[in-house]
Amino acid sequence: MTTKANATDDSFHVFDTTLRDGAQREGINLTVADKLTIARHLDTFGVGYIEGGWPGANPRDTEFFARAQKEIAFENAQLVAFGATRRAGGSAADDPQVKALLNSGAPVITLVAKSHDRHVELALRTTLEENLEMVRDTVSHLREQGRRVFVDCEHFFDGYRANAAYAKSVVRTAHEAGAEVVILCDTNGGMLPAQVQAVVSTVIADTGARLGIHAQDDTGCAVANTLAAVDAGATHVQCTANGYGERVGNANLFPVVAALELKYGMKVLPEDALAEMTRISHAIAEVVNLTPSTHQPYVGVSAFAHKAGLHASAIKVDPDLYQHIDPELVGNTMRMLVSDMAGRASIELKGKELGVDLGDDRALVGRVVERVKERELQGYTYEAADASFELLLRGEVEGRARRYFRTESWRAIVEDRPDGTHANEATVKLWAKGERIVATAEGNGPVNALDRALRVALERIYPQLAKLELIDYKVRILEGRTGTESTTRVLITTGDGVGDWATVGVAENVIAASWQALEDAYTYGLLRAGVEPTE
Amino acid sequence: MTTKANATDDSFHVFDTTLRDGAQREGINLTVADKLTIARHLDTFGVGYIEGGWPGANPRDTEFFARAQKEIAFENAQLVAFGATRRAGGSAADDPQVKALLNSGAPVITLVAKSHDRHVELALRTTLEENLEMVRDTVSHLREQGRRVFVDCEHFFDGYRANAAYAKSVVRTAHEAGAEVVILCDTNGGMLPAQVQAVVSTVIADTGARLGIHAQDDTGCAVANTLAAVDAGATHVQCTANGYGERVGNANLFPVVAALELKYGMKVLPEDALAEMTRISHAIAEVVNLTPSTHQPYVGVSAFAHKAGLHASAIKVDPDLYQHIDPELVGNTMRMLVSDMAGRASIELKGKELGVDLGDDRALVGRVVERVKERELQGYTYEAADASFELLLRGEVEGRARRYFRTESWRAIVEDRPDGTHANEATVKLWAKGERIVATAEGNGPVNALDRALRVALERIYPQLAKLELIDYKVRILEGRTGTESTTRVLITTGDGVGDWATVGVAENVIAASWQALEDAYTYGLLRAGVEPTE
Repeated sequence: MTTKANATDDSFHVFDTTLRDGAQREGINLTVADKLTIARHLDTFGVGYIEGGWPGANPRDTEFFARAQKEIAFENAQLVAFGATRRAGGSAADDPQVKALLNSGAPVITLVAKSHDRHVELALRTTLEENLEMVRDTVSHLREQGRRVFVDCEHFFDGYRANAAYAKSVVRTAHEAGAEVVILCDTNGGMLPAQVQAVVSTVIADTGARLGIHAQDDTGCAVANTLAAVDAGATHVQCTANGYGERVGNANLFPVVAALELKYGMKVLPEDALAEMTRISHAIAEVVNLTPSTHQPYVGVSAFAHKAGLHASAIKVDPDLYQHIDPELVGNTMRMLVSDMAGRASIELKGKELGVDLGDDRALVGRVVERVKERELQGYTYEAADASFELLLRGEVEGRARRYFRTESWRAIVEDRPDGTHANEATVKLWAKGERIVATAEGNGPVNALDRALRVALERIYPQLAKLELIDYKVRILEGRTGTESTTRVLITTGDGVGDWATVGVAENVIAASWQALEDAYTYGLLRAGVEPTE
Repeated sequence: MTTKANATDDSFHVFDTTLRDGAQREGINLTVADKLTIARHLDTFGVGYIEGGWPGANPRDTEFFARAQKEIAFENAQLVAFGATRRAGGSAADDPQVKALLNSGAPVITLVAKSHDRHVELALRTTLEENLEMVRDTVSHLREQGRRVFVDCEHFFDGYRANAAYAKSVVRTAHEAGAEVVILCDTNGGMLPAQVQAVVSTVIADTGARLGIHAQDDTGCAVANTLAAVDAGATHVQCTANGYGERVGNANLFPVVAALELKYGMKVLPEDALAEMTRISHAIAEVVNLTPSTHQPYVGVSAFAHKAGLHASAIKVDPDLYQHIDPELVGNTMRMLVSDMAGRASIELKGKELGVDLGDDRALVGRVVERVKERELQGYTYEAADASFELLLRGEVEGRARRYFRTESWRAIVEDRPDGTHANEATVKLWAKGERIVATAEGNGPVNALDRALRVALERIYPQLAKLELIDYKVRILEGRTGTESTTRVLITTGDGVGDWATVGVAENVIAASWQALEDAYTYGLLRAGVEPTE
């Protein structure tokens, strides 16, 4: 199959709903900071549309839209607000929920509309005719207000089975009222590809509307259902990063775009974006605090892992006989042996990305690969800790680690008093510019107390630290061990008002791991500030 | 689609290769005992064929075939031995590898044959004609020895793209030599459903052979590819439990048979077997020592989990509007997640699910809703902490919180010594059964030290605590804008060897939040053990 679509025209939409539908996944609970970080990753990856949430429905989403438009310079994506058609019996113009959508400032609005007759009666508690009126009124009102409108037909496929004529009349109504795309949603996820293809073809023929597809993975066919809709003429695909979503999940963005680009020969992402796919998949997993799936198609660490032996020699002669695509195309690598995720290619790519010139020094790159392998075996991850990786990289390039201070020792005490209040105290002993400094501070927790003690100790010597702020803090117990006796990984995001950076620490306990990540965070902050290393 | 197939006739084959191809999954390493246990589960589930391994290729598989035939009274499955065609230039009759297949005693033998011309030349290092001779000779020899023979055409789809005529000649040769089924293998897993359907239809038309399908999941379409082959006329599907397999994995047995039985209306399993699916999926995961995927279609614990709120009332009226099948059909259950949108309806449903009778006490339900909202405002999440929610619920129902001990105070100290080692010590002071207990313990971290001190303090009074084990520990900082000064949420999963449960703690620091989650974890463990509250 060939195509007219490319990332700059609008003839095919890659629409991501990780921040809205994906956030429905059991166990995911996103802060506004998380959402902004994920939005940046998705924009870098090059999706055309990012559905950010339901402004008005909850304060977090309202804040996200306000800050995303202020703080993110989108290069590829348009921000999309999700909301519902106006309430029954009212008018879109004075519907507070509809107003909130406009107030979000999002240029594109996705309206969810009922298209299953029983749902209209049971969930909306209104008449089939009024539901059509709600669609017509809300779409035209938003169009009059100058917004682009997409309409999600919720429970479409089940509705089509129950009452095809009505389901199609909802599509027709949305289309005629000015919706650019009408999305057929398999909300309960029970469809199979052959069925999706048949329904989509018929609906296109009968309504003339531009159609999109929103598939849930309850039959394990969400990716295939999405592609079946494209085969039938849909030109808009709704997906989520890593397939996050309610119940089993949504159609996974990564295998869908990989199939479109590599199997269909379509151009749906910016040049070279596909090679970022593995990195971005893992980075988003870290943000939502879920272990990246090792067996995810294309991006899993096992996706191109081959048991050596039997085929090894043949693989060396012609690897393409044993892999369906070149893993480099998606930023992954073929692995003949277990464990490490790092390859020369990815190190060179990251070096370039960080502006650290590795030149053609193969020995240097080799050393970095070795260091990364060794650290990742210990539990470090550099996917989501670029600052720690850059410190490691510069350490190898410059022959010695960047050091602004040397820690002698530290101590943290947490005490729960009979009255229920807590005392948190930390003491640090360190050397900076030849001076031994001992500082003690209290905090609302042991890590906060250590953070403050470190500031107290260093701020006089390094006033640049004053504007540093800890923005996010994540802890993960590493897999395959048990409970509180296992290795702990801490990821810390620090900001200086200009930008953010992430650092990682790994130790047998959360406080020691936090300390490592704090040391890296302060060191990188001083590096960013252009301070010369002193130790 | 309807069918003539049923579990007793042979017109459709459900062929499981968990023990052979599934065992290729990175991280799986099966003992003979593991294989026997899995074979029993698969036979109970009702698959028609169990491929046990490659007898002769390794002693473990040889032993498996010997013991399986002695120790297992198969009720549904036939045991299948996997092997290769005889070596080039030899004769099947005196090929030791072929002899080992016969010696295994397996009534059915699956032969792997090359069907991609480049693989014949590169990996087999023989001529295309000799490869056909190897297939013909080996199949007829095994048939003469009274065995049923299936032939796996390795790399068939890539081979078909490279040289369709040759790929088909291998199918024809195997068919004419007496192979009952010729299986088209997407060994590299790069196919999409539409392509599979087209190729399978053509090959059936051109060869007249009975075809099977073996799909790998590298495009995320293995289940759909398997169903596409069935749509095209294949009557034999090769799958693995939970989709275990090399790289991304194989077609997952469970969604494939569920689709065939529930969506196609075929009868491919014994009566009532499907209702065992969830149990068997989890049991097999335990044997291979992998955590069951929470988001696996049909059988995952999240597969029928709904964020309550909005839809809860409608779900109560007609659950089938919100699920693609009745979860009971596959032995799973609908779960309501208590989220910050929690309303009366979802609390009532949740109470029913937990077996806590809320009767028609609207005031009580109202109080629970209020408590949940108030706690979730503070940062608690009950969606991921069922045990803490049940304690809250019972507290309201019973008018007082379940208490087995009262904490007076606790203290944790973490010290980083100049030599880089850490000292972690915790002291707890509490009351249980009218006794004041002070206990101190060390750990590899502050939470671990607190956990141990709590055990030391309580185990004499509550020996039931001995078998409790912390399984997972997650920390999240809420309101991600101010790093270590924000509220901390800790989620702890605890197990007692029978099941596990999750508890939540929220406080201004990670240690205090962990303590809360620990208190709930121990309290719920004692509740589960049937111990009466004492405080």
